[in-house]
Formats: sequence, structure tokens, C-alpha cells
Amino acid sequence: MDRRQLTENIRRKGSMLCVGLDTDIKKIPQHLLRTENPIFEFNRAIVDATAPYCVAYKPNLAFYESLGVEGWNALELTLRYIREKYPDQFIIADAKRGDIGNTSELYARSFFEHLDVDAITVAPYMGRDSVTPFLGYKGKWVILLALTSNKGSADFQLIRDADGMPLFEHVMRTSSEWAGPDEMMYVVGATQGSMFSEIRRIAPQSFLLVPGVGAQGGSLEEVCRYGLTDDCGLIVNSSRGIIYASQGEDFAEAAGAAASELRDQMAEILRQRGIC
Amino acid sequence: MDRRQLTENIRRKGSMLCVGLDTDIKKIPQHLLRTENPIFEFNRAIVDATAPYCVAYKPNLAFYESLGVEGWNALELTLRYIREKYPDQFIIADAKRGDIGNTSELYARSFFEHLDVDAITVAPYMGRDSVTPFLGYKGKWVILLALTSNKGSADFQLIRDADGMPLFEHVMRTSSEWAGPDEMMYVVGATQGSMFSEIRRIAPQSFLLVPGVGAQGGSLEEVCRYGLTDDCGLIVNSSRGIIYASQGEDFAEAAGAAASELRDQMAEILRQRGIC
Repeated sequence: MDRRQLTENIRRKGSMLCVGLDTDIKKIPQHLLRTENPIFEFNRAIVDATAPYCVAYKPNLAFYESLGVEGWNALELTLRYIREKYPDQFIIADAKRGDIGNTSELYARSFFEHLDVDAITVAPYMGRDSVTPFLGYKGKWVILLALTSNKGSADFQLIRDADGMPLFEHVMRTSSEWAGPDEMMYVVGATQGSMFSEIRRIAPQSFLLVPGVGAQGGSLEEVCRYGLTDDCGLIVNSSRGIIYASQGEDFAEAAGAAASELRDQMAEILRQRGIC
Repeated sequence: MDRRQLTENIRRKGSMLCVGLDTDIKKIPQHLLRTENPIFEFNRAIVDATAPYCVAYKPNLAFYESLGVEGWNALELTLRYIREKYPDQFIIADAKRGDIGNTSELYARSFFEHLDVDAITVAPYMGRDSVTPFLGYKGKWVILLALTSNKGSADFQLIRDADGMPLFEHVMRTSSEWAGPDEMMYVVGATQGSMFSEIRRIAPQSFLLVPGVGAQGGSLEEVCRYGLTDDCGLIVNSSRGIIYASQGEDFAEAAGAAASELRDQMAEILRQRGIC
């Protein structure tokens, strides 16, 4: 999906919402455990309930890998289901991969060809040749970790060089030489709200994937105040706040309601800013 | 496996060799493609041929994930095979994971409990709470990326702070507050030969996992000259140079010969240094 399609979907739906499919077998409603593939059944119901209100889905691969073959199978079924039934959804594999060139090439093939996702999150630590193998796939995106939403983000991402430039800024500036804002996005945590104006100074046009709204405590309004571009430029993720809105038999309905509520807040902000 | 067991195996075998199981379906001998599980059959033959000469195996997960469910299945079969037939081998999941706390917890469970590997490689970019969930498993290890073997390692790992300290040194020093040398190792590429004396100044006792000997051009002698500790302190990985020593029907025999040759060089060095 290219940037024009993505922004059209955002405008049409009045939503920059990404639903994080961090599906944990220990947290899904009991009655689903009797089905043949509980993880997939859960995801399918969540997707059907939330699709009108979001523009993207982001399965975090850890949740699937931790179940081995069975989890991998549920992931493939989920991705295929979204792709076929909701072709306008932007699918992000939250994988945080990054390895030497020949290995990153394999990951790129795996995610962009075999699983056919639109984007993959990539960790920058190993530098250029660990990232560039993911580039050059038409309509596919790299989402590079820049300033993450967790507490430990301060350990290394904020280390400043002799000129005062923090590591995350090095990552954003250096990687902008590898790919432009039509092919690369950045992860910037909503918990870093006060940093968004700084981020926009560094990357005025890039789309940002913003986790950390909701369970992690980030503020949608603060993120939008400093982070929005003319064509939105933000994909805001919520995982636990939506998919575990209820753990009873009404889980899908509750997820739909939570997504709808967040979408309404987003639509209001997007209207105020003249984006939709 | 604890440090004492690992170093005993190194002394007994005169080897610090790790065989990298970077098994690529496109590179394995043709005749195996007729078997039911070519990747596993290849790995089993490689392991049987090389086990006398090495102390560790390191499957790079990208190679398995890129095949989806089938690859994940081959990985599980391979790990179980090594664990049961060669219980003295140290098994490293080369996964380069690293995510927010609750996700890293899942990865830790997946790799240490479900797959029962001895160690997992972890990327440091997200800081403390992305790494500590992997700690505290008895006899299990975190191997943190420090100074990698690829060209792109210079992009960020060598950025210096105002006091001249490079990022990789920050990673090693800060992470040493999270775990000691009985629970944490570091990845330092063999292509960084001249840096090993610097590395030993920072982490005098830590085991180092050293990729990049062979195909990537690193020198075993240079690595050992500066990198060896009293109990060895090095696990040196070779992947392509061993597992693709021949692509014919004699692939396993050739892999055994390549591993044996590398082991002989290692044994000579370890003897000279009085380690075995």
C-alpha cells in the first residue's frame, strides 16, 4: 500500500487507529479454547468488530512465536483473513528484526512475499546493511525503531554525541539517507509526547507509528498536537485497551466499542485540523 | 548450561567452535529435497558429522521463519534432536530479539521453556526492560549484540558520546549492571579483530560470541590473541564455511572435515595458551 492509499483510508474513515493483535492464549475468553484454533478465532472476531474503525492491524510476532508451530499457523491464517476480507487495511508485522544482510534478506522475503504484510518493524542497531534489504519492495514499508515507548528507551536512545545529538536522532537522520518518507516510517512512543515537536523537526514528513496510547499511558491529544502532518502522518496503535476490553463472551463487541470510541476522538482531531 | 560446564566442554574437546545452522532450502543438496523434511534431514546430518568438533550450535531463526510453519517445525525437530542426542552442546537461538517488557517475557518463555535453548541473542536498542525479562532463568544466557561483524556496525555502534565513549561500550557497561558474566555474553564480530583488546578492557571476564570467521573474513588468530580469557571466554561461530563446505552428496562428510580442521587450529591455540 502506498502513502496515497494509506492517507485516503485515513481520511475516509476519520481514523489513524492501528489495532495491535497481541493475542495471548492466556487472556482470551474461555469459551474460545474449545475451538480448533482459538487464537485465530479470537483474531477473526476482533478484526470483524474493529475493521470499520481502524486503518491498520499490527500483530506482534512474539505472541505467535511463543506458541511454536501452532502460533505461526494462527498468524498466517489471521494475515490471510485480513488481506482477503479487508484489503484496505495496512498490515504491520511487529517483528523488530534486524540482522546481517543475507539474513535480513530472508526476513524481507518471508514478511513481504510469503506473509504479504505491508510493513515490518526493524531494529536499527546493526546499521545500514541490516535495514536496506527490506527496502525496494513496491508498496512495502520499513518502520524503524527510533524512540520507543518503554522506560528502557532512555538507556541508549537518548545518549548524546559530542555535538549533543541523541542516538535516536542519528538513527532518523542517517536512515533518511537510505529511504525517503514514502518507504520508511519510524516508531515513536506516545509516552514520549513532549518529544514529538523535536521529532517533527527531524522528520517533518515521515509517517510515525505510535504505540503507547492507553495501557502504557500516552496521550492521543499530545501526540496529535505536535505529531500531525498535512496528510496525518500518524498511525496510532492500541492493543490491550481494545482487544481485552472485555474478557467475556462479549469480547468482540467490547473491542468494537473501544475502537469506535478511539476513532471518534481521532475523527474529531482530524476534522479540527482540516485533514478529514 | 552454566559457565563451568561450558568451559569443561571447551577444554575436553579442544574447541570453542559453534556451528551456525543457517540452513537455506536453496542451498542444500538436491537429493535431500525428495525427503519429507529436507531442512531437518540436512541439519541432522550436519550435526552428526560436526558434533565431535564443536561445543555449540546456533540456528539463525531467520532461515526457519522464512519458511513459515514448515520451517518452524524443522527448527523444533532440530533443537530436540541436538538436545537428546548431544546434551553437552550449548544451543544458541540466534534471534536478535528485543521488545517491550511483556513481549520480551513471551520471547523468553518461548525460547527458554518451549524450545529449551541455552542462550538467545538479544538486540539492546530498547534498553533495560527489553533485556531483563530474559534473565533469571537458571543455566540460561542472554547474548547481547555489542559490536557486530557487518559493515553497518559502524553506523551507530561506534557513535561516541561527549566523553568519547562509543555506543557499543555504553551497551556493555550499562548491561553489566543488569547481569554478570555468568548469565550474559556479548556478540563481537571477528571482523573487529583490532577491537578485541579494547573489548577485554571493558569486559575482562565475559564470554564473547564471535561470528564472522571464514565467509565474512575475520581471523581466528587475531580474535584469540586479544580475546581469550583464562577459561577461554570465546565461542567462535562458523556457518557457511562448514555447512556448505560441499553441496554434493558428501555434504555432511565435508562439513565434518571443515569443522575438524577449524577445531585443530583452535586446539593448537588453546594448548599454546595453556587452556587445554
